[in-house]
Amino acid sequence: MSDLEKVLARIDADSGAALDRLFQTLRLKSISTDPAYAAECRACAEWHAADLASIGFDAAVRDTAGHPMVVGHLREGSGPSALFYGHYDVQPVDPLELWNHDPFAPSIETRADGAKEIRARGASDDKGQLMTFVEACRAWKHVTGSLPIPVTVLLEGEEESGGVNLPPFLEANADELRADLALICDTGMWDSETPAITTSLRGLCGEEIVIHAADRDLHSGFYGSAAANPNHVLARILADLRDADGRVTIPGFYDGVPDLPQSLRDSWAKLDFDPAAFLGEIGLAIPAGEKGRSVLEQTWSRPTCEVNGMGGGYQGEGFKTVIPAMASAKISFRLVFDQDPHKIRDAFRDFVRARVPADCRVEFHEHGSGRATAFDTDAPTFQTVKGALTDEWGREAAFMGGGGSIPVTTLIREKFGVDVVMPGFALNDDRIHSPNEKYDVQSFQKGIRSWVRILDSLGSGSTTLPPG
Amino acid sequence: MSDLEKVLARIDADSGAALDRLFQTLRLKSISTDPAYAAECRACAEWHAADLASIGFDAAVRDTAGHPMVVGHLREGSGPSALFYGHYDVQPVDPLELWNHDPFAPSIETRADGAKEIRARGASDDKGQLMTFVEACRAWKHVTGSLPIPVTVLLEGEEESGGVNLPPFLEANADELRADLALICDTGMWDSETPAITTSLRGLCGEEIVIHAADRDLHSGFYGSAAANPNHVLARILADLRDADGRVTIPGFYDGVPDLPQSLRDSWAKLDFDPAAFLGEIGLAIPAGEKGRSVLEQTWSRPTCEVNGMGGGYQGEGFKTVIPAMASAKISFRLVFDQDPHKIRDAFRDFVRARVPADCRVEFHEHGSGRATAFDTDAPTFQTVKGALTDEWGREAAFMGGGGSIPVTTLIREKFGVDVVMPGFALNDDRIHSPNEKYDVQSFQKGIRSWVRILDSLGSGSTTLPPG
Repeated sequence: MSDLEKVLARIDADSGAALDRLFQTLRLKSISTDPAYAAECRACAEWHAADLASIGFDAAVRDTAGHPMVVGHLREGSGPSALFYGHYDVQPVDPLELWNHDPFAPSIETRADGAKEIRARGASDDKGQLMTFVEACRAWKHVTGSLPIPVTVLLEGEEESGGVNLPPFLEANADELRADLALICDTGMWDSETPAITTSLRGLCGEEIVIHAADRDLHSGFYGSAAANPNHVLARILADLRDADGRVTIPGFYDGVPDLPQSLRDSWAKLDFDPAAFLGEIGLAIPAGEKGRSVLEQTWSRPTCEVNGMGGGYQGEGFKTVIPAMASAKISFRLVFDQDPHKIRDAFRDFVRARVPADCRVEFHEHGSGRATAFDTDAPTFQTVKGALTDEWGREAAFMGGGGSIPVTTLIREKFGVDVVMPGFALNDDRIHSPNEKYDVQSFQKGIRSWVRILDSLGSGSTTLPPG
Repeated sequence: MSDLEKVLARIDADSGAALDRLFQTLRLKSISTDPAYAAECRACAEWHAADLASIGFDAAVRDTAGHPMVVGHLREGSGPSALFYGHYDVQPVDPLELWNHDPFAPSIETRADGAKEIRARGASDDKGQLMTFVEACRAWKHVTGSLPIPVTVLLEGEEESGGVNLPPFLEANADELRADLALICDTGMWDSETPAITTSLRGLCGEEIVIHAADRDLHSGFYGSAAANPNHVLARILADLRDADGRVTIPGFYDGVPDLPQSLRDSWAKLDFDPAAFLGEIGLAIPAGEKGRSVLEQTWSRPTCEVNGMGGGYQGEGFKTVIPAMASAKISFRLVFDQDPHKIRDAFRDFVRARVPADCRVEFHEHGSGRATAFDTDAPTFQTVKGALTDEWGREAAFMGGGGSIPVTTLIREKFGVDVVMPGFALNDDRIHSPNEKYDVQSFQKGIRSWVRILDSLGSGSTTLPPG
């Protein structure tokens, strides 16, 4: 029995304990965007540092101006060194009433189709995913006493809240974190049986605007029409952001956005993608984005503008005839190719200012920014990881575009000049960022096995075994 | 000393006790729109019934399908009988953090200009105002043992929450409530030294819409553009409601809205109204309504459409890249002249439905409706009340248009075919419906004295005394 076979056997034998460990971190309410959970975020960082140390990593919680990082080194083996990135923070859980159980009391549930899933906030994004890598390391270490390649683990606590402390942390600790390649587990499979590596990600520009009108809430019977209503000002701005064809109207927004290269268009055309099923699964039917663009283009290669939150005036039970003093919205732009988040932020602010009446004022808050990223999938590292995934799942792994944004990818690429390989085991129906987030037990267990094979392949070249 | 002189003297002697009584009702959290305060609403009704009984009224709490009414009769005197209407319910108090003290712990504060004000939710709208009438009755009864005219008091508990139980209550108790004229104290002065009678009120049509899109909250990175965002759908609807000239775009909205009659235009031109000061007092400068209409027209004689509340997606601290499953808005229309609230509601719903994508759906909730009202100020009753107000304040009382909506006015007029006279002592800066609501002690005390004179004039004809 080869080392690889022994390690894979260990994964299967240790699966109950691996789930127990995952549950320990899932119980910690590491909601990074809400300051009320700062202590839970730190507790979660401490848990992960201790967990890495228990494997043999030289691991520590590292302070930043915000939530701390976790860094662990286990520099064994002779292959190329790898920096693994994951994030231990999670999204808020509201609206809580839509959860079918406590989001921080993880459980295993069996679906109608017989498959088991792990239910908790963070089960898929990203605690379950990052633990697939950690458990693979644990098994290698347990069975062989070492890892196939030198590994550094970096876990962030602010991925869901702008990640403003990551760039200075990478800068300040560049020598310590530098590696020959980077690995990230925060993306999805093509479908539940087909593994995938995400090879492009959209960038992000997040903005919050607050429109201030009168210096107090007003009675709409007395002041209606005469006094500026910030709800109206805001609705007009938000409506103006897109035209009737779904195109974003901010001047210069599409600068740096080429049409999809034919090679990528061809590669995506080979994917068995059904737009009706994609939308039907969430109860919708009509693509809402730019007219004339396919759903894959809309979500993978075209920039977007989405109002993630808006509010003003009375939203409680019943009715209140008020003209509020202020109204606000949170807006995110997903960026592609060479769009510059800073230029877009400036252009957006000009666009907003031009629509605010002279007797009102607008306040801007920045919520993160990052450029889009795309990698050359012909590079040997991508082919090696693809081979390991194909071996584990028994289906050829896909190279996918990704609609989401993982700014660290761009940061690592720019800082260290290395490839960032993103295999991931999440599924479209994992409900990340939504109530009732889940992660399939199969994603978790075969995800761990996938990493075992990836580490092996990166260390030795080309070892393959039949799918598990 | 005439009876009138004695009663006015009693008011002044009893002013401390009158404030104490007002404070008792101001302490009760009778927020009608929020079901959590149902018991406090009932407690407030019981307090008012007991208070009326202590004067000698045959008073009782009367159940409805919602919050109860209070009805009290004191049918003494030989003049025309009067039905007095007020409401004991109050507006919600959010945002609570903007209050400079507990809204339900009333206090007297002295302003920089030396004037005293009563601070509490409901101080002006409408507990302080309704108690001006009750205290006038108390003083007449105390001094003379009877009232100058037969009086029935009707206090509603749902004026701030749609008032859906008032029409059936008036219908079921028409014989009991019928009177020769009606009196309401729920409106304002022209300014702090000039009394006024409001002789026209706008109608109201309140609607809440909920836009439903996907069957769950979505991650905007994965589904952005492709999935309908209900925030976008809602913003588009709300923005479309008014054109660039501030006109409401709903088809048929202006049916039944004539241009302002020249006589009313002349009468309003005589009022010393300064639009810059009106808006400047609330921190604004530019009239936001229909272009080409004066601020008085915009707020008194033109219909309006105001978004009183809207919300969708993540509104907490920080950021969440979500596409919400739903978004909602509360919208009120103020109606004038012959606008039909039912036709406008139907037209609004058609307008909304036409803008909801085929794979989304909209839910409508009705929040009250009432037609506009205007009275002929040449009628003797109006002249009598005007004379009493002029006597008390030493300035000619104004006949004013009113921007607000008091649906009971139309109901009483239609049901009983009588004049509804609305003197009121609120001021523009009372912050009704806003944090830090107040009522000037002068409004309260001279309001009581005004009602003493009004009751006297209605009972006897023309007794006058110099201002107090």
